Amino acid sequence: MQTTAWEARGIRTDLAVEAHELASAQAGQKSIPGIQTEELEVYGNTVVRIRVESEEAGHILGKLPGYYSTIKAADMQSRNQDNVEAVSKALAAEIEEFMSRLNLKDEDTCMVVGLGNWASTPDSVGPKAVSAILVTRHLWSVSPPEKQGGLRPVCAIAPGVLGITGMETAEIILSLVQRLRPAFVVAIDALAARDLDRLGTTIQLSDTGINPGSGLGNNRIGITPGFLGVPVISIGIPTVVYATTIVIGALEALASRRKGLLPPGIAEKQDEIREVLSPELRDLVVTPKEIDLLVEEVAKIVAGSLNIALHPGVGPDEVFRYLQ
Amino acid sequence: MQTTAWEARGIRTDLAVEAHELASAQAGQKSIPGIQTEELEVYGNTVVRIRVESEEAGHILGKLPGYYSTIKAADMQSRNQDNVEAVSKALAAEIEEFMSRLNLKDEDTCMVVGLGNWASTPDSVGPKAVSAILVTRHLWSVSPPEKQGGLRPVCAIAPGVLGITGMETAEIILSLVQRLRPAFVVAIDALAARDLDRLGTTIQLSDTGINPGSGLGNNRIGITPGFLGVPVISIGIPTVVYATTIVIGALEALASRRKGLLPPGIAEKQDEIREVLSPELRDLVVTPKEIDLLVEEVAKIVAGSLNIALHPGVGPDEVFRYLQ
Amino acid sequence: MQTTAWEARGIRTDLAVEAHELASAQAGQKSIPGIQTEELEVYGNTVVRIRVESEEAGHILGKLPGYYSTIKAADMQSRNQDNVEAVSKALAAEIEEFMSRLNLKDEDTCMVVGLGNWASTPDSVGPKAVSAILVTRHLWSVSPPEKQGGLRPVCAIAPGVLGITGMETAEIILSLVQRLRPAFVVAIDALAARDLDRLGTTIQLSDTGINPGSGLGNNRIGITPGFLGVPVISIGIPTVVYATTIVIGALEALASRRKGLLPPGIAEKQDEIREVLSPELRDLVVTPKEIDLLVEEVAKIVAGSLNIALHPGVGPDEVFRYLQ
Amino acid sequence: MQTTAWEARGIRTDLAVEAHELASAQAGQKSIPGIQTEELEVYGNTVVRIRVESEEAGHILGKLPGYYSTIKAADMQSRNQDNVEAVSKALAAEIEEFMSRLNLKDEDTCMVVGLGNWASTPDSVGPKAVSAILVTRHLWSVSPPEKQGGLRPVCAIAPGVLGITGMETAEIILSLVQRLRPAFVVAIDALAARDLDRLGTTIQLSDTGINPGSGLGNNRIGITPGFLGVPVISIGIPTVVYATTIVIGALEALASRRKGLLPPGIAEKQDEIREVLSPELRDLVVTPKEIDLLVEEVAKIVAGSLNIALHPGVGPDEVFRYLQ
Repeated sequence: MQTTAWEARGIRTDLAVEAHELASAQAGQKSIPGIQTEELEVYGNTVVRIRVESEEAGHILGKLPGYYSTIKAADMQSRNQDNVEAVSKALAAEIEEFMSRLNLKDEDTCMVVGLGNWASTPDSVGPKAVSAILVTRHLWSVSPPEKQGGLRPVCAIAPGVLGITGMETAEIILSLVQRLRPAFVVAIDALAARDLDRLGTTIQLSDTGINPGSGLGNNRIGITPGFLGVPVISIGIPTVVYATTIVIGALEALASRRKGLLPPGIAEKQDEIREVLSPELRDLVVTPKEIDLLVEEVAKIVAGSLNIALHPGVGPDEVFRYLQ
Repeated sequence: MQTTAWEARGIRTDLAVEAHELASAQAGQKSIPGIQTEELEVYGNTVVRIRVESEEAGHILGKLPGYYSTIKAADMQSRNQDNVEAVSKALAAEIEEFMSRLNLKDEDTCMVVGLGNWASTPDSVGPKAVSAILVTRHLWSVSPPEKQGGLRPVCAIAPGVLGITGMETAEIILSLVQRLRPAFVVAIDALAARDLDRLGTTIQLSDTGINPGSGLGNNRIGITPGFLGVPVISIGIPTVVYATTIVIGALEALASRRKGLLPPGIAEKQDEIREVLSPELRDLVVTPKEIDLLVEEVAKIVAGSLNIALHPGVGPDEVFRYLQ
Repeated sequence: MQTTAWEARGIRTDLAVEAHELASAQAGQKSIPGIQTEELEVYGNTVVRIRVESEEAGHILGKLPGYYSTIKAADMQSRNQDNVEAVSKALAAEIEEFMSRLNLKDEDTCMVVGLGNWASTPDSVGPKAVSAILVTRHLWSVSPPEKQGGLRPVCAIAPGVLGITGMETAEIILSLVQRLRPAFVVAIDALAARDLDRLGTTIQLSDTGINPGSGLGNNRIGITPGFLGVPVISIGIPTVVYATTIVIGALEALASRRKGLLPPGIAEKQDEIREVLSPELRDLVVTPKEIDLLVEEVAKIVAGSLNIALHPGVGPDEVFRYLQ
Repeated sequence: MQTTAWEARGIRTDLAVEAHELASAQAGQKSIPGIQTEELEVYGNTVVRIRVESEEAGHILGKLPGYYSTIKAADMQSRNQDNVEAVSKALAAEIEEFMSRLNLKDEDTCMVVGLGNWASTPDSVGPKAVSAILVTRHLWSVSPPEKQGGLRPVCAIAPGVLGITGMETAEIILSLVQRLRPAFVVAIDALAARDLDRLGTTIQLSDTGINPGSGLGNNRIGITPGFLGVPVISIGIPTVVYATTIVIGALEALASRRKGLLPPGIAEKQDEIREVLSPELRDLVVTPKEIDLLVEEVAKIVAGSLNIALHPGVGPDEVFRYLQ
């Protein structure tokens, strides 16, 4: 993947919706050839669907061709059960949309993979979500057909990160996929956003997989449909903003919004700027102080939505009644 | 595996050394044909090595033919660093003994597997140990040969239990073994003992793998050399005693030690006894109140010993100085 | 407090309802002078209310004179939201019953105290419940009266156990009570039961406080209305059965239910029995394997019920909608 | 406390040593009247001692008059046991320095208070340190004098934060101090630094207590010698940098170090700058990705040093051997 214009400036985002905003601003136009966007409201939440139609358009966005969908919830941390249910239903609906595009059958096995690191709070949303998934594969095969109704065979794993396992996560998943032959994989991961107000409010789906260098884990091999040989629906949750992104963003805002305060060309002097910025800054992340609570809450929402979407006979009511 | 005489009486143990005691008592003789035992002192700890030489002898013990080694430490919970180092060194020496019997070379890859469940304290010793293993496989392949010296390629995973993953643990490990081709597997698991004073004091090694129904997780498929196609060194740590084992043991002690208090034939009336015992009792386990602390401590000891034994250039000093 | 007949036999329980059963069996009669009992159904759960009217009756039960109420739920671990709500409502109703007997006013300050030890799973139900209490005291004093409506000033603390603080828990609470002058204290603690099927199904309320030696923490000074100078409503949750209780209970069951299997007088030979039982047994507790999950679940129920009962304007719906 | 010049610019620090650097730069001179500084090396670590001698000097620094000592370790996260021991010994030595200035006797009771929030990783260093303190007060009073030798009576508590308890932390501690009458209080808290390379490398001691608005918890009432009526030694550990501090710092660095890149007066236009910066930024903190590990490690160092310093008969060897 080529470096995008904003990555060259020191801004990092894993969100297609932010990449699209940046690319549009860069191009000075609202629409970019080869990129279709649609905005709709689902259970009171704003959903932005982006389709990257060509390799070329993908280069502009820094994203592989495919479907991206972003749910922006009013608030996922509010402990307001109504909001939580609304965003869960919207996420379940979007997951079902991705599944229907893949022509999956009700009895097709799904393997859910929680990427990231239990021991690092902002990177633990994948493992935490996996621990609340309604897992059925081991029961399904020994159940009579009439009992299987409504439950899809689902298995799940949180394999851990490279530094802890010594194995590329993609390698672990590939070996499981090759042996257990699921029809598709759902991968849950923590993401980096550009805007602070994405934290705790946004969920991104895509069918392009988890790409090398994206997410907090910086995997070297992508967890993609091409590598695994089966479709991958990825669910990404922004939990951090890189500190450099914040600083560069602030500089650019100052330069553009306040004429005369900063010289207009500041955004182009990125090399000089980055030289001045402390090298320690580059690996540092900004999180809300209540990140522990936020991760807990979002992991529950993602697991609940998957339980609704994956199991054809399980509706939102069952999930909220029985599986909380 | 046939049911042993004590299992029929309701007594359960995963320890070969206890099975040997029970079988000897049963047979009324100290030695059983086909079973070699040896007791030695290693760094101040008592080590009992048992070799089960034949299938027949294995049936008597309820154990597969192979090598078993039990380290009995004075105390692993004492927070006394000297004791901790002594038992770590003894465990490292026994692991090396098993490795040398397998003719492993210094650069042979090892896959460490932490069995059990993060979310259940007595069953979490495997996952906790894995999180402290010095993992090198990902660095090894990109290091120049002169830097590899002293470090073996080691990878590690704690895959979770069947109820959480929907996949048999043995199946997960087999798929990883077939892809990554380690020369051997080390499997760490929590065990059930018969005697309460085994908890927090005993570690068992064996080269027969983890068998179906053993450990706390009750896996249905064994994690054995035969199934995986590579040698398996298992390290088991007793963290519970089944409640039924306690009750039956108490009854038998009363019957045998106090003539006249209980009728002598009580031990044979096990069917009647078990009928009276509450069925809830059967799944219940006895743990010390400080089980959380004990599991923490033992996991550290197992990880430390593996770090010494697996990496030829890492001595006890390095482990206690640098990796604590 | 004198030793009861069953304590002398090695049976331990913190539940008044079990003490009453044992005392009735001992006396060979259903009712004991000075003890009033009442059984009712509340939201589908069985509630047994016991009133100990005199010191004398108290000695027979091993309980101080006062009110005791035991809620027996079908199942608190089922993750069935309907059951969870039913037992939460029943518990809230019983708390309100105790509060109304104390003639508390809506604006009277409540101090909630979570007894026990974060770091020991079976003893952590108090601290975990406290972390989910809707705390308002700090907001209440700065709110205009019309905003205070519906919310009582509530503060909460989980001070930790003697071995970790070096301070008697009763001493810590007394110093806070004397300074902050709450109108009453609610104390949440883990208990020991006699019967295994009490674990995860039973909650006990009382107005006699937490007595020395009761609970898992074995406090030396009681957290009682007399010591603190304010009313105390205690909420106790059985999470363990002592291993000795199990063994003695099994022996007695064998002796009584199976004529001829054990000699009839076995229950009286307790001294000889206890001599044979391993001394390590005495401090050991029996818990279900899923104790981690059970404690999590029960702590949420207790906190939810307190949030309903303490705040006059907060109904079950609000709690289940907004505070989960 | 008046707002300092850098606070007006949006820079926040709880470290006296950073405040001194900022004030010196502001004044354009190395020394400030009424402030004595001394730099020395202790066990290979750099220790900077600052004495604020007057109210006036305190206003310039934004610090109360008193003693401040900052230990800068090479690295506390390295898992290198030698480094860990070196910084622990240096911290123990500085704590002893503060204690000797207070003329404390060996048998004077110490109350250790862990400020902050268990449930928020960067704010949990106080509670985590407290859980590893060697607590003796409850044993001391019942021990014969010859057994007391070498151990000071120490008690400890982590009361939790205002939002969770509904009580000002200062109020809780005052009530305990008034009842238990310790001779002095040691308060452990997480701090905000200005420079990123302070995180995981710096520990600050002071005898002025924890002041309102300092630390991550933003207490409204100070935990000061004046409020409590006994001496307070505070131990503060920087775990975060506020995001605004990072941005303003980067802007100032650009303006000063790269002539021509930014207009020289940028640092003075702070009002305009802060208007542009997103309001969400103000509560956001920057932490290293490995903050969970860092907090764990630093809490152990602080507890170990206190165990050495508080107990006259416990040397570094005992602590590293027996209490790890």
